[in-house]
Amino acid sequence: MDDIAYYAGGVFRSAQADRKKVVVLGSGWGALSFAKKLDTKLYDVTLVSPRPFFFYTPLLCGSTTGTVSQGAIIEPIRDSAAACNYLHVACSDVDLEKKKVHCANQDTGAQVSLDYDHLVVAVGAQPNTFGIPGVQEHAKFLKELEHGAEVRRQLLNKVMEADVALVAGDMEKVKQLLNVVVVGGGPTGVEFCGELSDFIKRDLAVRFPKLQDHFQVTLVEALPGLLTMFQKAVGQHVQDHLVGQGVDVRLNAMVKEAEADKVHIKMKDGSIETIAFGTLVWVAGVGMRPFTKALCQKIGPDNGQTDRRGLLVDECLRVKGTNPGEVFALGDCAVSGKPPTAQVAAQQGKYLGRMFRAGQQERLADKEAAPFKYAHQGTMAYIGDNQAATELFPNGLIKLGRSSITDHMWWRSLYGDVDHIRVMGVAGFAVWRSVYFSKMYSMRGRWCVASDWFRTFLFGRPAAAPVQGTAA
Amino acid sequence: MDDIAYYAGGVFRSAQADRKKVVVLGSGWGALSFAKKLDTKLYDVTLVSPRPFFFYTPLLCGSTTGTVSQGAIIEPIRDSAAACNYLHVACSDVDLEKKKVHCANQDTGAQVSLDYDHLVVAVGAQPNTFGIPGVQEHAKFLKELEHGAEVRRQLLNKVMEADVALVAGDMEKVKQLLNVVVVGGGPTGVEFCGELSDFIKRDLAVRFPKLQDHFQVTLVEALPGLLTMFQKAVGQHVQDHLVGQGVDVRLNAMVKEAEADKVHIKMKDGSIETIAFGTLVWVAGVGMRPFTKALCQKIGPDNGQTDRRGLLVDECLRVKGTNPGEVFALGDCAVSGKPPTAQVAAQQGKYLGRMFRAGQQERLADKEAAPFKYAHQGTMAYIGDNQAATELFPNGLIKLGRSSITDHMWWRSLYGDVDHIRVMGVAGFAVWRSVYFSKMYSMRGRWCVASDWFRTFLFGRPAAAPVQGTAA
Repeated sequence: MDDIAYYAGGVFRSAQADRKKVVVLGSGWGALSFAKKLDTKLYDVTLVSPRPFFFYTPLLCGSTTGTVSQGAIIEPIRDSAAACNYLHVACSDVDLEKKKVHCANQDTGAQVSLDYDHLVVAVGAQPNTFGIPGVQEHAKFLKELEHGAEVRRQLLNKVMEADVALVAGDMEKVKQLLNVVVVGGGPTGVEFCGELSDFIKRDLAVRFPKLQDHFQVTLVEALPGLLTMFQKAVGQHVQDHLVGQGVDVRLNAMVKEAEADKVHIKMKDGSIETIAFGTLVWVAGVGMRPFTKALCQKIGPDNGQTDRRGLLVDECLRVKGTNPGEVFALGDCAVSGKPPTAQVAAQQGKYLGRMFRAGQQERLADKEAAPFKYAHQGTMAYIGDNQAATELFPNGLIKLGRSSITDHMWWRSLYGDVDHIRVMGVAGFAVWRSVYFSKMYSMRGRWCVASDWFRTFLFGRPAAAPVQGTAA
Repeated sequence: MDDIAYYAGGVFRSAQADRKKVVVLGSGWGALSFAKKLDTKLYDVTLVSPRPFFFYTPLLCGSTTGTVSQGAIIEPIRDSAAACNYLHVACSDVDLEKKKVHCANQDTGAQVSLDYDHLVVAVGAQPNTFGIPGVQEHAKFLKELEHGAEVRRQLLNKVMEADVALVAGDMEKVKQLLNVVVVGGGPTGVEFCGELSDFIKRDLAVRFPKLQDHFQVTLVEALPGLLTMFQKAVGQHVQDHLVGQGVDVRLNAMVKEAEADKVHIKMKDGSIETIAFGTLVWVAGVGMRPFTKALCQKIGPDNGQTDRRGLLVDECLRVKGTNPGEVFALGDCAVSGKPPTAQVAAQQGKYLGRMFRAGQQERLADKEAAPFKYAHQGTMAYIGDNQAATELFPNGLIKLGRSSITDHMWWRSLYGDVDHIRVMGVAGFAVWRSVYFSKMYSMRGRWCVASDWFRTFLFGRPAAAPVQGTAA
């Protein structure tokens, strides 16, 4: 018996030693959905990220108003990828020759270097200010979890400052403090306006009755419409709904400069309008992280890295200009012709995970390997007042054998010659909640979110938050 | 009908104008239990505090490990004292002659001055380092809500740093990072050690199996025993239990100096021992806030303010050296001969609120008014592993007519000639949870805490927290 145990141990150890080393940079949608697909008996997987948790981006807007708590939408990497190693450091440099990544903890300076056989870059993107002066200094963003906390703190503090200004009788100051200017009419901007108008109408106006006539939300978008990734009719519907909710929607409006308490906007007719704000939320787009930029430059434009949006990859997510099968990129840091969304990143992660399956590893470097195919499942945005705009593509969700749902007679008899359905209003909100609830990674997350949603239903959103702390 | 409405409005307005102005400084146990007792038809009440929420101090230790979330234990002042005004500023100065308080927002500098007829000072206390070098810079405290968040961030970050040090093979660094030194053997220190040993055994050791043998908790106390406010046998029981949980308890040990990663301790025999730590938590005592100190000096030692612990008050909580009935102090900032506990502050707030009742206001300045009487209801401390030490004084909870519970024959036949009962172990924990649950201020709070406790029971405590953010 001892021999058998010893033998098994030996096999296990040798299997352990033979495992290929996979280093994953990132802890978002792409990194996690990839890491979860890997067989850790075959691969020694190490995730490297300065953020020790995955967070559920679709509910970030809800966390700014307290509809859900921040703790409910995070998932520690240690739990969600328990079989992988995780190191709480940021990758500072990649040695593509020696196949090494150099990492450091930004707080303590502690350094560690890791060898890899395969490197997967999934570091995501960062908010893009497009170089507009004053935005970096004076705007709040909504990309990372801590941005949500900062926006919440700022929103609530400004309401309380307005209360003080009211006692002092300074009505202009009150109006300035209570104006929230949101720049960017994409899904994040629209959802934030929806959540915010709920928060104002249902909670703040009740808790701060003297201030209730002075709350204002202003949505600024450079394009002539909102939600341009939806069909045009959807954008128009959403715009009408937000206006009905009291949001001041400004289209064809370009931010030229931001100051500490006002923003200068160029309107379509060329005139400059100045809007005073208490809170400026910038959700106008994303750009490359410094790390991604440095890696692009390291590989060099001569080797094909010529894009200013991220790492150019081939159809199998291999980073152009690197040895085939060694370096991959996915999600928002990769330029693959797909939009920078969670849906794309998650599908890319799963696709790449399948490429790493047992017995098929030769595909990793194979130019003829099956390329990544994106199946668009739909787009959704909560727009306030228990309503959402959703566009669902059932073909992306389910395929019936070789044919797709929209090939079927019953589909055509119901919906005609279209491949998607739109669900708007309260029904859309039901779809929104159901889909996002079911897509959460863990039962713990579902428990927390369900209990938070029910708490909000029962008691409303609290008018103060722990993040405000003791400092005034 | 119009006339009646008009008349009623007139009465209401005149009542409004005649209302005495009460300004309350603070948003803790004393301030809130006082403000809730006041009849806002008689008084125009304004709470002034840089902290826009009350927070439920008994569960602060639990929030450091994630047993409850921070959002669950706060109660916005706007909700808990909805009929009062609240201003998110800190009082910087009191003009006792003109009966004015000057306040400012520490972030924005916005200023506001308020007139008062009655001023209630309930600003609490702050952690006391007793001037020991290095403590202010290198220790974490556990007094305010944000301290809980900082301790949580530090604890989790150090565990993740230890993971990196393990990869680098630096075992001494691992041991240092995973040692948590707690200074102070009172209820907060003991509860924190209990919560922490739960967190380590049930969650961290499972999530970080390679680190599990290196976690250490060290409890340092200058006195020869723990929980000296309990009976001596209780302190001994708690000490034995903590040692059984793996806590290294050092009694008769005085901290002499703290550095960034080690602390120098003078033992009973006079020798100096140096302990390396990853996290140093300082819960050794409380002291006066700068505001309280300034107010003491303003009134002056010649007028009776001679105590270095806080504002000296008479038996009716009137601040000595001020005009009778004008300035009151209660809770941790007042020196009334009672210990600085939540129980004392809450009872003082209720007592003072009753003094302000209709038709009895002349008592406010009356030297013969009934003095504050403290009814001690008991002391409780969670000590880990689902056990707690509790000492209950039923006489403080319920009086039967003129006699007290312990006068009754049935009590004596059950418990003999004692006026209190001790409940230890798991039964004590049941008492601990029941009492603290029932004492919470709002149904929202109870919902949140119950759902958090159940979440912890189902899924454990998460091994990462939003407060860690993206920065490594």
